[in-house]
Amino acid sequence: MLSTDGVGTKVLVAARAGVHDTVGEDLVNHCVNDILVHGARPLAFLDYLATATLEPDVAAAIVAGIARGCRGHDMTLAGGETAELPDLYQPGYYDLAGTIVGVVNEPAALHGDRVRVGDVLIGYASNGLHTNGYTLARRVVFDTLRLDLDDEFPETGRSVAQVLLDVHRSYAGAVTPVLPLVHALAHITGGGIRGNLVRVLPEGCEAIVDAGSWGWPAVFRVLMRAGKISLREMRRVFNLGIGRIAVAARDDVEAITAAARWAGIETSVIGEVRAGTRGVGFAER
Amino acid sequence: MLSTDGVGTKVLVAARAGVHDTVGEDLVNHCVNDILVHGARPLAFLDYLATATLEPDVAAAIVAGIARGCRGHDMTLAGGETAELPDLYQPGYYDLAGTIVGVVNEPAALHGDRVRVGDVLIGYASNGLHTNGYTLARRVVFDTLRLDLDDEFPETGRSVAQVLLDVHRSYAGAVTPVLPLVHALAHITGGGIRGNLVRVLPEGCEAIVDAGSWGWPAVFRVLMRAGKISLREMRRVFNLGIGRIAVAARDDVEAITAAARWAGIETSVIGEVRAGTRGVGFAER
Repeated sequence: MLSTDGVGTKVLVAARAGVHDTVGEDLVNHCVNDILVHGARPLAFLDYLATATLEPDVAAAIVAGIARGCRGHDMTLAGGETAELPDLYQPGYYDLAGTIVGVVNEPAALHGDRVRVGDVLIGYASNGLHTNGYTLARRVVFDTLRLDLDDEFPETGRSVAQVLLDVHRSYAGAVTPVLPLVHALAHITGGGIRGNLVRVLPEGCEAIVDAGSWGWPAVFRVLMRAGKISLREMRRVFNLGIGRIAVAARDDVEAITAAARWAGIETSVIGEVRAGTRGVGFAER
Repeated sequence: MLSTDGVGTKVLVAARAGVHDTVGEDLVNHCVNDILVHGARPLAFLDYLATATLEPDVAAAIVAGIARGCRGHDMTLAGGETAELPDLYQPGYYDLAGTIVGVVNEPAALHGDRVRVGDVLIGYASNGLHTNGYTLARRVVFDTLRLDLDDEFPETGRSVAQVLLDVHRSYAGAVTPVLPLVHALAHITGGGIRGNLVRVLPEGCEAIVDAGSWGWPAVFRVLMRAGKISLREMRRVFNLGIGRIAVAARDDVEAITAAARWAGIETSVIGEVRAGTRGVGFAER
């Protein structure tokens, strides 16, 4: 099991804030979450850091964050590449990508084929934007609201930098112990709940998400209002407070939510699987 | 065996020329050459393509080149990530990185510990800049010589675009059949012959490169002269016509060079290993 990913334009917030370790950890957790949807356990990680001119303390901070993320998952940081590419990157900016190697026994691998009509959708709380929607969020925060990094992010009591650099939560601890009970997992990244959940549904299964079954964190309410973003666009771009969805039998909800609680992550049942055309719908209240 | 790498600012030449498939193949061959120095055989590849706004035909051309490189090595293109990062990349530009997974049986792995005093250095011809020195080369070609992509690259009879986009040669076909005879391998990338060959020398072994034992390809002579680059800098930045060095016993030179010839790659004995302080020296004629 191999996967490559980046952290999007969250790197631009990190560069602007001069805080470089959190995006390293974001990168690892994002990649861990990506392979976790197949039921895979992380083994090794490689990073790619590209910049105009390498600044040793910036690189050291980024790698420290990557190493912290790897340690958090008992994973080897197997290597990486640091590239100096003047003319491609502006001074002070960098891009960051990672490749993860994971393993899953084929009989235990999740392919979505276990999903059944009558299953429920268990939503796991996100702790912010994770690593998606940063291009839109930056426009709203910096251009429309004209906030700076040290200003308070409205309705949060925290600074813009703190809110926008919250580290992408890893769901490995919450999900791994109950993998045998899970029928499918979705990592809510770009494309939102619909774009990511639909991938794990078999033909004849329609997932209905109860839109009122959880409350949006303040950051998303603020972005929608200030940016005059449509509900459709919000749902396409952001995780809206749900970073992961597990599809499982109703009888297993208690065990699955207990494992998440044990790992310190809130869950709620946010919908169900019905017979219908393969797809994801939202039930409004 | 895992390795991540990029193709440097060769991507800027590709973007300027509107030729996008060759850098994809460059990326694969560069990564194959990287793990080959450990005696590893390529198994799988993942690419990371980051750009401001994804242009489908550009992405298709890049991936076609990557796929071609993978097919050339019977390697699986296992996945990848395409990231749209406006504000980080200027319109039309992109960065490209790849991660390769290879395998080598530990007893066959090359760690440099087989190198002996009396061994010879076999140099394999490069076919251009490969993927190193592009920042310096672009300055000389576009700023000092004021050439454009369609102009003739002096002394080559070919255009600037053709010369600068020559695909990084893979040495897998030339080297793999004779791996059991090889004591160490160096991939001549950034750092040049000295920077890369020194890594595989054990204590007490000094590699002496006979500087006059091969002729520099025209591209390097032109760059040195036009850019008024010192010999020291040329040797640090460019491969100067030697893309790979194999260290082997004198008795095995014939078999090793025959395998390279069979694969269509010229070789010559370019030096030897003497007793001395671990390092690489150049013997001038």
